[in-house]
Amino acid sequence: MPIVNIQITREGTGPGRHAATAEEKAAVIKGVSQVLLDVLKKPLDATFVVIEEVELENWGWGGQSVSALRRQQAGGSR
Amino acid sequence: MPIVNIQITREGTGPGRHAATAEEKAAVIKGVSQVLLDVLKKPLDATFVVIEEVELENWGWGGQSVSALRRQQAGGSR
Amino acid sequence: MPIVNIQITREGTGPGRHAATAEEKAAVIKGVSQVLLDVLKKPLDATFVVIEEVELENWGWGGQSVSALRRQQAGGSR
Amino acid sequence: MPIVNIQITREGTGPGRHAATAEEKAAVIKGVSQVLLDVLKKPLDATFVVIEEVELENWGWGGQSVSALRRQQAGGSR
Amino acid sequence: MPIVNIQITREGTGPGRHAATAEEKAAVIKGVSQVLLDVLKKPLDATFVVIEEVELENWGWGGQSVSALRRQQAGGSR
Amino acid sequence: MPIVNIQITREGTGPGRHAATAEEKAAVIKGVSQVLLDVLKKPLDATFVVIEEVELENWGWGGQSVSALRRQQAGGSR
Repeated sequence: MPIVNIQITREGTGPGRHAATAEEKAAVIKGVSQVLLDVLKKPLDATFVVIEEVELENWGWGGQSVSALRRQQAGGSR
Repeated sequence: MPIVNIQITREGTGPGRHAATAEEKAAVIKGVSQVLLDVLKKPLDATFVVIEEVELENWGWGGQSVSALRRQQAGGSR
Repeated sequence: MPIVNIQITREGTGPGRHAATAEEKAAVIKGVSQVLLDVLKKPLDATFVVIEEVELENWGWGGQSVSALRRQQAGGSR
Repeated sequence: MPIVNIQITREGTGPGRHAATAEEKAAVIKGVSQVLLDVLKKPLDATFVVIEEVELENWGWGGQSVSALRRQQAGGSR
Repeated sequence: MPIVNIQITREGTGPGRHAATAEEKAAVIKGVSQVLLDVLKKPLDATFVVIEEVELENWGWGGQSVSALRRQQAGGSR
Repeated sequence: MPIVNIQITREGTGPGRHAATAEEKAAVIKGVSQVLLDVLKKPLDATFVVIEEVELENWGWGGQSVSALRRQQAGGSR
């Protein structure tokens, strides 16, 4: 009966990718559900996993939006 | 003062529909708010309801994404 | 497959009660699940409802904690 | 280590705007993170802020969707 | 930068246990964080995992509270 | 109409304190609500703020529970 809400930034894991792929999200669902089965004996068919992909300008870290952070990192100014 | 967050998959309730309609969402808001008024005396104007519609590949159940599940169900392989 | 998270203040609905009763919470679960079945055809056995009861000093409204609000209301100073 | 989830309706703060601007969201992130630093000594670089913008027909208040409310307000029927 | 919120019922995984143990929760944190590192390359030190343990009478499934369900299961009436 | 959910570890801000005080939580509510009024013109009386205090063993960071982290920090082994 677990409910797992996963919030991630909408970013890809490699060049040319701008978001997690369907396969990657399926792998996260599978892996996280398996952890809950292995550790807490929660049956897979009673486990919900919801992935929320958040735009970079909607995620703040260190008092800034991640979009600003990424621009700084790209501009090498950090 | 209740806050109700409702997560549903982005699916329609009938053929040709790919998501809940505005009328259906309004009916959910009305119904859920009424339950909280009837049972817990929470005034309607102090009750927030937020509906989050989640893409099928972002919702996991049984260790799989719902999009994979729906493909299996459509392909009758389950 | 809906997930419903309901946040309410930890308050009773009548004199001498300091929180929702088990019966009231069961009625909320039943009522909310029924709305999702009636409106969106979501099966009851695929619907999760989680009720979070929040201490009054942990809930803010109007820039104040509800505990402060309740003291004002009790003191009639509003 | 705070996690702050902020849900707002997808509405602008002035004529011609239909959503919060990137600058406004950055100011919210900055301001909220600063409050947690000032009051609870939570370091900025350990504070996550996530802003979720919700469509008006997905937000209920007073038993109605906000889109219905806005139509009434626009039509002056309230 | 992932945020993972995990809601589980406050139940133990074996006789005499009424909730997940500290070790089990640590194993869930470790396992889930590792999945996000392996699949989405999310660094461990940028991943937050929050576990919320919910009382059985505050979790609804199938239109009933889990506490009612467990009583039925214990009474073998299901 | 904003809803702000703030999750913090149950820790004090000074020696002898094991959690945020009522005054600190009130200051967080006030400050956060004010930011949303100042930046997005959201009226205070339409803003909900909910603070969730999480036990250290229920919060994971860097693949470990914060309780384990705090023990390491206390033991100077980090």
